[in-house]
Amino acid sequence: MKVEREVIRFSATGSTVGTDELADERPLELRIAGVPIAVIMRTPGHEAALARGFSLTEGILLHPRELAGVEPVGEGDRLELQLSPGVEVDPERFRRNAYTTSSCGVCGKASIDAVLVAARRLPPGPRLTPSQISALAPRLRAGQPGFEATGGLHAAGIFDIDGELLAIAEDVGRHNAVDKAIGLLAERRWPLGEVVLQVSGRVSFEVAQKAAVAGIPVVAGVSAASSLAAELADETGLTLIGFTRDGGFVVYAGADRIAG
Amino acid sequence: MKVEREVIRFSATGSTVGTDELADERPLELRIAGVPIAVIMRTPGHEAALARGFSLTEGILLHPRELAGVEPVGEGDRLELQLSPGVEVDPERFRRNAYTTSSCGVCGKASIDAVLVAARRLPPGPRLTPSQISALAPRLRAGQPGFEATGGLHAAGIFDIDGELLAIAEDVGRHNAVDKAIGLLAERRWPLGEVVLQVSGRVSFEVAQKAAVAGIPVVAGVSAASSLAAELADETGLTLIGFTRDGGFVVYAGADRIAG
Repeated sequence: MKVEREVIRFSATGSTVGTDELADERPLELRIAGVPIAVIMRTPGHEAALARGFSLTEGILLHPRELAGVEPVGEGDRLELQLSPGVEVDPERFRRNAYTTSSCGVCGKASIDAVLVAARRLPPGPRLTPSQISALAPRLRAGQPGFEATGGLHAAGIFDIDGELLAIAEDVGRHNAVDKAIGLLAERRWPLGEVVLQVSGRVSFEVAQKAAVAGIPVVAGVSAASSLAAELADETGLTLIGFTRDGGFVVYAGADRIAG
Repeated sequence: MKVEREVIRFSATGSTVGTDELADERPLELRIAGVPIAVIMRTPGHEAALARGFSLTEGILLHPRELAGVEPVGEGDRLELQLSPGVEVDPERFRRNAYTTSSCGVCGKASIDAVLVAARRLPPGPRLTPSQISALAPRLRAGQPGFEATGGLHAAGIFDIDGELLAIAEDVGRHNAVDKAIGLLAERRWPLGEVVLQVSGRVSFEVAQKAAVAGIPVVAGVSAASSLAAELADETGLTLIGFTRDGGFVVYAGADRIAG
């Protein structure tokens, strides 16, 4: 997850040569039936989980069992998503309809309407107390070694309603951390109806969308949520929480899941 | 840039209903000759600058004068990039070859190699003193009203080597802020060889790439740089600086532009 590099540190009193640990960032190509469907700039590690989570949160696959396996292709950072018998996906559909995110300037999508992909309406529940919610961000931070070292890694953790950490992942990409955590958990648990996703940064539209598509009913971020994330939360019944810090938080949508 | 929303604030002692200002996030579709080439999730404002900057930093256009104008299409958030007479661009090329970023999980690009788009080798110069560099981040912060209000906006500022602010922009998208600032400046100044780009967050691969493609020789971020950003800086001769805070900073690459 880290790459050592020689750097020069300048301070008000002078400069010193030393080493710094940088968050590692590499492209990963995903393929279905030999057709490239996505190139993801990610921090190396948990590639199979990233591929599994990505395919679930982007609506490419509807259930973890639709994925038979994830196999390397050739020497490079290329993975083939092997579909289970009987599962059919048109890779051209995802190659052509790729949409962009708020951190991303490039997109192959042909229509604004498709940015709002179909996310099912989330069923009611679970209910959490404020203290249950406040407990999650410190636990995510405690499980996030990469940020301390490099200052450049986002984290995503999935907790059950008792606050037990079910899966955690770090990545230079905010959305990759979410996909990795979902992919790690999806291997042993699905659906994800009774869990909370806590992220280390802000809750963008796409983080909220990935949670909703994966059926996660509660998303909390240490930083702010965007307006479109809040609108998506309204539309899908998602509980959207921001600024989980100093024992407090802000609820943007879905307050019915907060007890008391 | 902000949307008011009713929220519930929870603290250790109870909860209160109030309003919060959220960073606004909306899709914007860009077209060339009627063909959609990108959908960008952006904070409303400076749309023409975003379109101009995006077309320059993604290598779609090579010079601001290749863009005759930016015109709204229909009622929605759609813009047509009107090319100057004699300028030819194949919109399908950009629709198909869209690549992803480290914050973005979705991509229509067909090959990893193309992630490293052709960025020219930057010529030597300018040279800056450490105190010139340290002065930029506080000036960017002073010119960034949106972050204080919403906690969710990235900023990008372009300064000349005397520290004068030439252009500044804020956006929910890290890369959009860069594109907007470049687009604002490109309208009256090109090439951008004697300037510094200071961003409010980390320097991802794509921020470094956008600077290099636009011919900006020095990029500084308040937070960390990624490994691939540093490698791109090595390859293109970019000066890459991180952790511009508390009067100091870290130089990852291109220290020849630091005087003394």
